Amino acid sequence: MLSAGKVVCRSFKRVCQPRFLSTMKYLNQTEAINVDVELFNEYKFSVDQLMELAGLSCAHAIAKCYSAESHKNVLVCCGPGNNGGDGLVCARHLALMNYKPAVYYPKRTDKELYKNLTHQCCSMGVEIINECPSIDQAKGQYSLIVDAIFGFSFKPPVRDAFVPILDLLKQSGIPIVSVDIPSGWHVENGPSADDIQPNLLISLTAPKMCARHFTGEYHYLGGRFVPFALQEKYQLCLPPYHGTDTCVKLSG
Amino acid sequence: MLSAGKVVCRSFKRVCQPRFLSTMKYLNQTEAINVDVELFNEYKFSVDQLMELAGLSCAHAIAKCYSAESHKNVLVCCGPGNNGGDGLVCARHLALMNYKPAVYYPKRTDKELYKNLTHQCCSMGVEIINECPSIDQAKGQYSLIVDAIFGFSFKPPVRDAFVPILDLLKQSGIPIVSVDIPSGWHVENGPSADDIQPNLLISLTAPKMCARHFTGEYHYLGGRFVPFALQEKYQLCLPPYHGTDTCVKLSG
Repeated sequence: MLSAGKVVCRSFKRVCQPRFLSTMKYLNQTEAINVDVELFNEYKFSVDQLMELAGLSCAHAIAKCYSAESHKNVLVCCGPGNNGGDGLVCARHLALMNYKPAVYYPKRTDKELYKNLTHQCCSMGVEIINECPSIDQAKGQYSLIVDAIFGFSFKPPVRDAFVPILDLLKQSGIPIVSVDIPSGWHVENGPSADDIQPNLLISLTAPKMCARHFTGEYHYLGGRFVPFALQEKYQLCLPPYHGTDTCVKLSG
Repeated sequence: MLSAGKVVCRSFKRVCQPRFLSTMKYLNQTEAINVDVELFNEYKFSVDQLMELAGLSCAHAIAKCYSAESHKNVLVCCGPGNNGGDGLVCARHLALMNYKPAVYYPKRTDKELYKNLTHQCCSMGVEIINECPSIDQAKGQYSLIVDAIFGFSFKPPVRDAFVPILDLLKQSGIPIVSVDIPSGWHVENGPSADDIQPNLLISLTAPKMCARHFTGEYHYLGGRFVPFALQEKYQLCLPPYHGTDTCVKLSG
């Protein structure tokens, strides 16, 4: 029975924190979609909120692996969906952390939030690039590329508009940071032979099954907003975040 | 002239970073309102976005001053406006950082965002308290109180509904964390003789004039989202944030 004047809404407990790496869940596409839907429908988060926290955690993971001094000029490639929105938020926070990001956003989403995120970048001095740079241009200008093109809802084939930028990512040799899913990879089965190979993968909420095939230098988990009850429901067994960190290293 | 395929939207430069403490701007009420309006109208930020970042930075500042081990049980007191919204976000992030926050939110705002922020707290195990605790109850239960009652739009007098909680803050001896403005203080002139005296003040965006009268242990700046061009326009002369920190110590 509840004591007077108190409402306890939901009880939860934490599980699985020790030895997390051996037991951490890798989500299939349906589970990833379901966790997302639950965050919006059951927990009543807005896209604005979660995208802000996701993009911020991506910027923080990048800053932990590549300093603004050594990797100042960052090309952030944004796709048409939520993954691209995370990229726009990430670019803005990179700018606030003294990086010099440029955004390539070939297929813009016609939603108010995405227009506003683009406007925020733009009005904060982030360059918006309308044409895919050539390999030589990219090599001359950028020391890091953020791949925020496709997320966990992606189903092949890659649309024509994104072929040039994916080719650039494959061929330039510039280190790649992939947001949640390396673009072009099958969300569950991982990469084909000629797919991109990111150096840093930032899994958001929880890693997806394809992350098992990641062989790059750094793997981080970001998006520190998943309720413990939801972690428990899906048996995510996420590692503990440290202190005030918004991301946590999984490997590297 | 712009080069082909590039749009540079606004140029900016950074000023005032050295010797910031001697030159940092303390905003009057009108300036604080204008900066806020500009963030929403010119930069097209949503309340969701900025409240998320503001509340997150408050939780981080608290964690830097009071550990979850020594100050686990935190009473977060939320007023009816944006300051209260920051408090709700702060409470949620405290819960994710292993604090055990409880929220006292006597006059709820009838807006979807505020209902959702409350729901998020509630569904993440944060206790919602409907009655103001007595001094003895509070002393027995809480080791820290977050004052997110009134922000920079406050004009006296204090409404009846908030007198008991302000009395509790004045009389309990429990350390107080004030979000942006110590509640009851004149935003420009500071405290009257019997006003609360917070131990930690977290100024958001930029300190307000009343912060000059703060004599508590720790003063932090949070809300790392202010565009450099806006900082320049208002000659805010904010200190540099370090690394990935969402807040920066001003004193203490």
